[in-house]
Amino acid sequence: MPQLRIALAQVNTTVGDLAGNAATIVEWTRRAADAGAHVAVFPEMSVTGYPVEDLALRKTFARASRDQVELLARRLAEAGCGDVLTYVGYLDQDEVGPRNAAAALLGGEVVASQYKHHLPNYGVFDERRNFKPGTELDVVRLHGLDIGMVICEDLWQDGGPVAALGEAGVDLIVSPNASPYERSKDDVRLPLVAGRAREARAPIVYTNWVGGQDDLVFDGDSIVVAADGELLARAPQFTEHLLLTDLDLPSGGHTAVGEFAGLRVNRRVLSDTPVPAYEPLSGPAISEPLSDEAEVWSALVLGLRDYVRKNGFRSVMLGLSGGIDSAVVAALAVDALGPDAVYGVSMPSEYSSEHSRSDAAELARRLGCHFRVEPVADMVRIYVDRLSLTGLAEENIQARVRGMLLMALSNLDGHLVLATGNKTELAVGYSTIYGDAVGGFAPIKDVFKTHVWTLARWRNAEADKRGETPPIPENSITKPPSAELRPGQLDTDSLPDYALLDDILDDYVEGDRGFADLLAAGFDAEVIDRVVRMVDKAEYKRRQYPPGTKITFKAFGRDRRLPMTNLWRETH
Amino acid sequence: MPQLRIALAQVNTTVGDLAGNAATIVEWTRRAADAGAHVAVFPEMSVTGYPVEDLALRKTFARASRDQVELLARRLAEAGCGDVLTYVGYLDQDEVGPRNAAAALLGGEVVASQYKHHLPNYGVFDERRNFKPGTELDVVRLHGLDIGMVICEDLWQDGGPVAALGEAGVDLIVSPNASPYERSKDDVRLPLVAGRAREARAPIVYTNWVGGQDDLVFDGDSIVVAADGELLARAPQFTEHLLLTDLDLPSGGHTAVGEFAGLRVNRRVLSDTPVPAYEPLSGPAISEPLSDEAEVWSALVLGLRDYVRKNGFRSVMLGLSGGIDSAVVAALAVDALGPDAVYGVSMPSEYSSEHSRSDAAELARRLGCHFRVEPVADMVRIYVDRLSLTGLAEENIQARVRGMLLMALSNLDGHLVLATGNKTELAVGYSTIYGDAVGGFAPIKDVFKTHVWTLARWRNAEADKRGETPPIPENSITKPPSAELRPGQLDTDSLPDYALLDDILDDYVEGDRGFADLLAAGFDAEVIDRVVRMVDKAEYKRRQYPPGTKITFKAFGRDRRLPMTNLWRETH
Repeated sequence: MPQLRIALAQVNTTVGDLAGNAATIVEWTRRAADAGAHVAVFPEMSVTGYPVEDLALRKTFARASRDQVELLARRLAEAGCGDVLTYVGYLDQDEVGPRNAAAALLGGEVVASQYKHHLPNYGVFDERRNFKPGTELDVVRLHGLDIGMVICEDLWQDGGPVAALGEAGVDLIVSPNASPYERSKDDVRLPLVAGRAREARAPIVYTNWVGGQDDLVFDGDSIVVAADGELLARAPQFTEHLLLTDLDLPSGGHTAVGEFAGLRVNRRVLSDTPVPAYEPLSGPAISEPLSDEAEVWSALVLGLRDYVRKNGFRSVMLGLSGGIDSAVVAALAVDALGPDAVYGVSMPSEYSSEHSRSDAAELARRLGCHFRVEPVADMVRIYVDRLSLTGLAEENIQARVRGMLLMALSNLDGHLVLATGNKTELAVGYSTIYGDAVGGFAPIKDVFKTHVWTLARWRNAEADKRGETPPIPENSITKPPSAELRPGQLDTDSLPDYALLDDILDDYVEGDRGFADLLAAGFDAEVIDRVVRMVDKAEYKRRQYPPGTKITFKAFGRDRRLPMTNLWRETH
Repeated sequence: MPQLRIALAQVNTTVGDLAGNAATIVEWTRRAADAGAHVAVFPEMSVTGYPVEDLALRKTFARASRDQVELLARRLAEAGCGDVLTYVGYLDQDEVGPRNAAAALLGGEVVASQYKHHLPNYGVFDERRNFKPGTELDVVRLHGLDIGMVICEDLWQDGGPVAALGEAGVDLIVSPNASPYERSKDDVRLPLVAGRAREARAPIVYTNWVGGQDDLVFDGDSIVVAADGELLARAPQFTEHLLLTDLDLPSGGHTAVGEFAGLRVNRRVLSDTPVPAYEPLSGPAISEPLSDEAEVWSALVLGLRDYVRKNGFRSVMLGLSGGIDSAVVAALAVDALGPDAVYGVSMPSEYSSEHSRSDAAELARRLGCHFRVEPVADMVRIYVDRLSLTGLAEENIQARVRGMLLMALSNLDGHLVLATGNKTELAVGYSTIYGDAVGGFAPIKDVFKTHVWTLARWRNAEADKRGETPPIPENSITKPPSAELRPGQLDTDSLPDYALLDDILDDYVEGDRGFADLLAAGFDAEVIDRVVRMVDKAEYKRRQYPPGTKITFKAFGRDRRLPMTNLWRETH
């Protein structure tokens, strides 16, 4: 059967960096050509970066994107890879409106282009808002093989492009994707793509984006699936990768054009001569998926690294309290950026325990990051004395003085300040606005407290396995959590036990369950009521919190928009 | 011709307050009944409040909303107004998903209900995300007159419900709306509704919501338009109002049911007997629209008042710098809440001019609000000395010390802190995060600097007209703007002249114009480049800014979502 070598270019591009992204595409297509590939498939909107959000509505940006694609076709030819059929994603604009588009480039020209049909408009996606749906499909014949394309969500929804290509007939489907990471999403993707391949009776080449963009992180996990659904190749997660695969394809000689499943199928013959027989690559390239902990840790590391790097920062700074949250954030930062780019500051107040200082110092020693101590008692005192602060006002001013201190150091030295709050705190509003909420990025914003502990233990165990010093001091993991804003304070003074709290939050926030369901799940009515009230009241605080890497479907942020003024409460 | 008295209940309900909103509806329907009305029309989603955002996805909330509507039908009957056909909006949910619904209540029952068909998904609207579109229309015959309904956006889009009702035939269309205020939007609404009335050959009763909800404010401006497009009645803006109007309607005896314009039209006969002839109300009730300045001022006052009130606050606090922005915010706050609920704080530093103190004191004296002076020099000094702060770090710490001071006082006394930044500052990032950006609400967030001056002069002139003391000291209006964070600093050191800057911003932000268009408009290339860079870089700061009343289509906030990491720049 005719052969074809496909390169899945799992690259990390940046929103708005049209020239830089095009250069990346030229470089990786060059590598694909050197490796003998006939087809290269880049991710969805690889030329513009993804998601572009309301930049989609800016006509000058759409025009620049479209111009860049035409330029790119010529540059690929000039770089000697004009004979590689190269699929890229970009933003287009026509008389109907902005389009989420993909184009096939060959011989210095755009030989096919198509607009995404199914536009997701849930969770983190606003595509119905930003794009108009496409109604045509461009199938090309290369070396006698008919190749169709479908863009991301067009794979996920029933009907539309996959059904149309199945009915009209193709030998191969290529699919540019920008599918954000969520815990265990790879368990969903493979069965989905396999099912669509069977439906269309054609193999699917699924290239996903990798990298961080604002609060999203894309895990790669690009795959090639045979017409019968068998997994043929899989790229590693959370890293750029050129995945090469050889396909033996029956040449169907499909010619049907016109209307299928409500879409118009066009065809164009680029070449009819099969590729001469060649020696295929040895063995399948199937990367193993990561464990759940490794996957989450990698997502957090990549999300943080890309946010820092793509925003032009070189270093980060954070307060080290001796507690588990700041310890995990510091360890993530060192894994993301190296110890020399991480600046820890211990800011003891008069209520800080001895262990909060020694655990912070020990953490910094283990990580090899920068460390300084800046006591805040005198700065706090001046406010407390002048305004006679007590109670919550006194607690908050301590957190705020620390936030101001970090921001002043950031202004002096240019470090990006990291906020160290976790998802549990955010959920219930156990955080001081302008205090511990200060920062440009919040790496564990979407990680529940009990999960923070799990990740800490996992990271330490990984170090053990590699014969390295576990980064996080045991005492930071085992001691009872405290904000230390008043003498002898413990988190459990204000909150239910974290194991119970996270259980309820998981049901209420992630599961969107109501009061009756929570009762039925065995939780105590009074505790449910208390937690639900805290969650509903904290929306404003959550909105003011810095962005952070999203690892669940119901992360707090742009994909979960609740009114700030809202008198609705779940009750019995 | 048969007569019918209609009551447009332009009410202010609150998101989530199902019981409170239902009580409001009973009270106003009672008033309508007492005034002899046969039909009462409440705004879109009047039972739940609008917009409910992702609360739409919470099934328990949808169920409670639906239950509340059935309960409301019974309560109306119990209150003796069961014979008034009452239209209310609510959140529904069926097997397809959440619905933006409206129901007609009569005799203790829901006699008709319908789902919104056209779901807006642009600007501030996320309805494609939150609701599924309806495909049926419920027409009822009351007193021999056939009454159809269309919900808000169903009036704005061509085709769909208005076309279907026009083809099937109705004698009257009622329309519940939640149409947010934008400058001069009333100039658009009336021609639109008039055109639709002519299209359907039936009068339209258009009830709009009034009040503030988060960053939106609804202006009311409810209208009744005859079948030929003539304006018959108009409610005042920015205030709750029961607008009564008598209609002489030809009874068309329409009976067509089935599919029209892609929608299914159902009919139900409630009563065939015409209303006995009665004496109509004397004279048309057509309120004059406000002037542009009065309209904007009223929107800002109502937006602020409702944000404070609906979030359970009773008072506000703000820093008074002696400058124009804090002066205008203070005047708005006094107009919204009364002088006794407004707490001004002058926080001079070592760089503060004498006039900044005296102008602030004079403002407070004129407004009659609370006033205190809290010098910050010593609080600033402790940071500057300890960390050897200079330049930007020293400027920022002054703004931040002030923010912390306001928050500490807010924690002590429970005032909501107001941020006083304007749209120009937000656009170019001329603001200190955690400094002057501190607060729970930012009343003039969507007002350009030159517009702030215009409003100040207008408000003073209004006071003059009424023989009152103009609230804003002349010196605050006329002096050159300065942040006073270093000696002799002026805004023009960092920014182009505000008249020029606002002109460019209006084109770039509101008009979404590109570099070439700005050049063609006569702006200098270097200035354009400088402004565009500032705007693009400030997205993160804008996201961290408190919400504020939106008065333009392109307000910064939830309706304008740009990536934080974005390397795209407009260039030649």
